[in-house]
Amino acid sequence: DQYLGMKIKKISGSVAAPKGFLAAGVRAGIKKTGKRDLALVVSEKPCGVAAVFTSNRVQAAPVLFDLRQILRPPIHGVLTNSGNANACTGMKGLQNAGRLAGLISKLFDHAFGTHGSKFLVCSTGRIGVQLPMSKIVVAVPEAVRSLSASGGGRAALAMMTSDTFPKKAAVEFRIGGRRIRIGGIAKGAGMIHPRMNPRGMPLPAWPRPTAGGRRGGHATMLCTITTDALIGRGLLRKCLVAAVEQSFNSISVDGDTSTNDTVILLANGEAGNSPIRPGSAGHRAFQQALNRVALELAQLIVRDGEGMSRFVTVRVRGCRSAVDAEAMGRAVINSMLVKSAWSGGDPNWGRILDAMGYSGAAFREDKVRIWYDGRLLVKKGRQNDREVPAVKKIVKNPSFQVTIDAGSGKHCRTFYTTDLTEKYVSFNKTE
Amino acid sequence: DQYLGMKIKKISGSVAAPKGFLAAGVRAGIKKTGKRDLALVVSEKPCGVAAVFTSNRVQAAPVLFDLRQILRPPIHGVLTNSGNANACTGMKGLQNAGRLAGLISKLFDHAFGTHGSKFLVCSTGRIGVQLPMSKIVVAVPEAVRSLSASGGGRAALAMMTSDTFPKKAAVEFRIGGRRIRIGGIAKGAGMIHPRMNPRGMPLPAWPRPTAGGRRGGHATMLCTITTDALIGRGLLRKCLVAAVEQSFNSISVDGDTSTNDTVILLANGEAGNSPIRPGSAGHRAFQQALNRVALELAQLIVRDGEGMSRFVTVRVRGCRSAVDAEAMGRAVINSMLVKSAWSGGDPNWGRILDAMGYSGAAFREDKVRIWYDGRLLVKKGRQNDREVPAVKKIVKNPSFQVTIDAGSGKHCRTFYTTDLTEKYVSFNKTE
Repeated sequence: DQYLGMKIKKISGSVAAPKGFLAAGVRAGIKKTGKRDLALVVSEKPCGVAAVFTSNRVQAAPVLFDLRQILRPPIHGVLTNSGNANACTGMKGLQNAGRLAGLISKLFDHAFGTHGSKFLVCSTGRIGVQLPMSKIVVAVPEAVRSLSASGGGRAALAMMTSDTFPKKAAVEFRIGGRRIRIGGIAKGAGMIHPRMNPRGMPLPAWPRPTAGGRRGGHATMLCTITTDALIGRGLLRKCLVAAVEQSFNSISVDGDTSTNDTVILLANGEAGNSPIRPGSAGHRAFQQALNRVALELAQLIVRDGEGMSRFVTVRVRGCRSAVDAEAMGRAVINSMLVKSAWSGGDPNWGRILDAMGYSGAAFREDKVRIWYDGRLLVKKGRQNDREVPAVKKIVKNPSFQVTIDAGSGKHCRTFYTTDLTEKYVSFNKTE
Repeated sequence: DQYLGMKIKKISGSVAAPKGFLAAGVRAGIKKTGKRDLALVVSEKPCGVAAVFTSNRVQAAPVLFDLRQILRPPIHGVLTNSGNANACTGMKGLQNAGRLAGLISKLFDHAFGTHGSKFLVCSTGRIGVQLPMSKIVVAVPEAVRSLSASGGGRAALAMMTSDTFPKKAAVEFRIGGRRIRIGGIAKGAGMIHPRMNPRGMPLPAWPRPTAGGRRGGHATMLCTITTDALIGRGLLRKCLVAAVEQSFNSISVDGDTSTNDTVILLANGEAGNSPIRPGSAGHRAFQQALNRVALELAQLIVRDGEGMSRFVTVRVRGCRSAVDAEAMGRAVINSMLVKSAWSGGDPNWGRILDAMGYSGAAFREDKVRIWYDGRLLVKKGRQNDREVPAVKKIVKNPSFQVTIDAGSGKHCRTFYTTDLTEKYVSFNKTE
């Protein structure tokens, strides 16, 4: 947690911890349960923005909207609803996303004395159903009214779908004597295998004439991160992309990449630091702090994976290339057989080796080593019998690390995943 | 079933249905249950041979052995054991595969008056455990003794691991007035996502110094097909590759490609036809008949998928390229969310569209159509509400077809898969 003598300290709070940010989470009635389903995060001052979006070719309306909106900074905040994904909703869905962004802008301008503020929108929940606009329109003013520096927790609650707990994190560090804070909230539990990039994929023609539907529940991962650091747009984006790669883009619950995955980073510069320069110590500290917030939120998503009983860190190393390390890791963390074995407390290295074998990554079976936590279970592709009893105990724990050395190079990558349980299947049998 | 006026008739029997083939299935004691675990298929006359093997980079010893053995035709038969995969068994496993091939050759030569007969070997069962050679060596003579024209069923039984029923098929047709037969047996229920090619992948240095292990159960798919047609080696191989592509390479139970997947085709020419020429009507008839046997066996594997409750045909069409059609189909048939929904009797087109979206295949959401059996559920990417009640009934059936039209081109591909059930997970929690 120390970089060049600068301490990064975990603090309580989340998106409203950085100076000048406020948050709220209210009930709009989108969720049938009557729980909070509308989250608002704002900055009193305009923010620089960076964002990454799902690489799924089917992109939800809010993703399509935000992809354009971030081209016109500054941004004042993010309005997120749960209970409805606004995905596969066509032209009308897109219009609804725009209407919500316009509505919150107008209300915000009125309340905070700004003019022409711009907002991003996020949605998560059922796919193929139009947003219940009348309900949301009524609730947005209430969200604005209840904005507060202590509203981050309620905002995190309002993002939840199949999540069983809210996900939040915040850190504090110093650049040039100035206190900088980064805070975030996230949601996600199923349909979790984010592979995000700054542009989504592909960037579609705008507006895109797709049409609406009526059915199919799904989850997704959403994250809003805020900071009071003063940092330029290019560097902000660079930092976010790097932070997402080692966190959200390195997790999987079920291998299904959602249509809505979004991570937004807002920076309002209220900390009063001199602008962070690329390559400076401040840049490195900021990156490290951002990495920590992103990783903590990403890991919380895995820990809340639908039906999960084990949190598994899979570290792949000794690969010939970064592409190989990624392919090998993804094959292992998405293998139904490997994940089923883990749920049964079975280290089953044969299935791991099998998944490595079909990953497309290059390696030689007789060079492979596999550890469970510190225990070397496989050596030169052969079982190390001595460690079997210890490993059998480890894999029954709620959390353990599998380290795979392909013995073929210097590239590595770390992933975080769950086991696969009967509970996951029964949970996803019905919407 | 008719091609150029030639009828292809389904007949009873399997590998021993073609003239000159015999089969046996005996108990060697490899399986702890005491059930049949050693299958032998032979031809009294030497055979031309074609074979395809798993593209998994980790290849079991019998795969490594057979890859070389098929370079030296003719072949007299195939010896298959269940209960032990002889995978991740290193040098010793390779020597054991060679020893078994040598043993059966000697016994066969003695019994049938041949000299230097060559055999292929297949294994399926536990990974990382050396073959119990003493048990098998004792049982091989018994297998030779019990060879008969009615032994195909017992051979199919002896290949089974987690299979709940034996898989066999046979057809008969005529070329130039001569009766030709093709018969086959297969096994497979889990770790089923074959992606085979003639060479395996990659063809490793020989012998390869990998090392042995002791653990990890797994299934696989194995298939032996026989024919009495007279057909050259090059054409035989071409026909097999084509037949496998539309059958075994188009199925998935769990997306895990095994280390042992093997399909072997033996042709002994005993039908007395004049050699089948490439491009002739006879060639087309042979291909069609072979396709039928391979498809029937592949579909039986899916119908016996571990824990499965639904057999789903997924037809992808309207794709820009064959590569896109394959990618889109594989994403859908391996999606945990799509498969969980099916098990719950939920047509969940949102999850299908999501899987299409992350498949990497190019398409436009607003051109997508999806049918369940004949019912158009999704039209222009939007739900066709009228058909929802009918589709909800269809997806509760034990068998249905999902047709996906990407609306982006002319390429298509058909896959066969299962749903994902709690039973699959609990079955695979322990070895």
